[in-house]
Amino acid sequence: MLNTKKAVVLLSGGMDSTVAAAIAKDEGYELTCLSFNYGQLHAIELEAAKNVAEQLGVSKENHRIVALDFMKTFGGSSLVDTDIPLPQDRKVEDMGQDIPTSFVPGRGFIFLSVAVALAEALNIKTIITGYCEPDAGGYPDSSKRFVQGFEKLLEIGGVRNDNSPWNIYMPLIDMDKAAIIRAGISLGVDFSKTVTCYRAVKSGNNVLACGHCDACLLRKEGFLDSGEVDTTLYSDDTVMR
Amino acid sequence: MLNTKKAVVLLSGGMDSTVAAAIAKDEGYELTCLSFNYGQLHAIELEAAKNVAEQLGVSKENHRIVALDFMKTFGGSSLVDTDIPLPQDRKVEDMGQDIPTSFVPGRGFIFLSVAVALAEALNIKTIITGYCEPDAGGYPDSSKRFVQGFEKLLEIGGVRNDNSPWNIYMPLIDMDKAAIIRAGISLGVDFSKTVTCYRAVKSGNNVLACGHCDACLLRKEGFLDSGEVDTTLYSDDTVMR
Repeated sequence: MLNTKKAVVLLSGGMDSTVAAAIAKDEGYELTCLSFNYGQLHAIELEAAKNVAEQLGVSKENHRIVALDFMKTFGGSSLVDTDIPLPQDRKVEDMGQDIPTSFVPGRGFIFLSVAVALAEALNIKTIITGYCEPDAGGYPDSSKRFVQGFEKLLEIGGVRNDNSPWNIYMPLIDMDKAAIIRAGISLGVDFSKTVTCYRAVKSGNNVLACGHCDACLLRKEGFLDSGEVDTTLYSDDTVMR
Repeated sequence: MLNTKKAVVLLSGGMDSTVAAAIAKDEGYELTCLSFNYGQLHAIELEAAKNVAEQLGVSKENHRIVALDFMKTFGGSSLVDTDIPLPQDRKVEDMGQDIPTSFVPGRGFIFLSVAVALAEALNIKTIITGYCEPDAGGYPDSSKRFVQGFEKLLEIGGVRNDNSPWNIYMPLIDMDKAAIIRAGISLGVDFSKTVTCYRAVKSGNNVLACGHCDACLLRKEGFLDSGEVDTTLYSDDTVMR
């Protein structure tokens, strides 16, 4: 029997996917969380993902952390290769105009495809992502149009269990960061447990964010606009790798 | 600059992908081969893939074998789980009527997505698959319609390098097995180096095929129809795992 109130949620450990998961949980979805270790330099986000999953009441068995080591060997992104410079101190309004070096080849395709695999294996037809359009990073393979096209493709390729429709649910897709933060706070999300920075490093028990990458800048502006307190530890002393 | 005569070819080590690669090479494509270890019980096909790549003059550096270990842990297929029975001794005309247990959840999505990742990293926009429709296994995510839909999706999500069109080239898509075998022989393909069987095992220096799974039956019938000699070693003594 199809589990209509079960969902696979893509959980990076960042703000957006955390709030998307919290919204889904609040709406009654039983979550299986899916995170990826693809050689990202900020793999510390996986610790955040574990904390978030625990906070959401998801058991360890229902939080799958999948190794995609090959993505680092493919390279081509400043998220996996220190030799490729990461954009810094850009104006938020300039982001999204081009595809930044933090774009990881094929990542959007791969993440959704692995989610499809897990969902099919578990007889689930809902996938949840925290993709948002207004304050997105300019990645074409996590845009609304892309995800809608992918969902359409599932009508052809995703008929293993039955012909019922798939739902790739994007609760944040039309929200900006401030709205996402307010939504998260209203649901009790502890943002101190989330990691956003592309160059986040551990320092003792703390995670330090660089404060200069696109992800940090969007987070900073989001908190400023929302009027909420940002508990992120930013360190100008953090050496940009 | 876009490498218009370079291609990423999905190479399983079976007949179809081998012939597709040989056709592409004959047409002047410079090939980067991509194979997957996803926990398939017939991982011996990867040895075949290596032999085939070598036979095609592809260097070791240009043959990427990618580990997708998570697919075995997801399960849900008789190709990765010995507890799930594999269809045996079916009539060829009955295949394709339903989705058999050898279907691997999400596999078609994942294989193409990883090919996209590699192609984007290498600045290539041609992907070659050996999918064929007339004698296919009944997998919805390797059908012509699916691949065409996937190609369409690349217009949205695959614009990292430029806006030029992608080409997912399926040279065998309308061919039956006999035609594929004849095409391969005309190009000098050594079919003894290919491994088709879902339960292939190594026995000394030989690979033994079960002779009873859908893949074996399609191969057998293909050779019979083509009038060519099948050098595959079939063993009724092979214990079905």
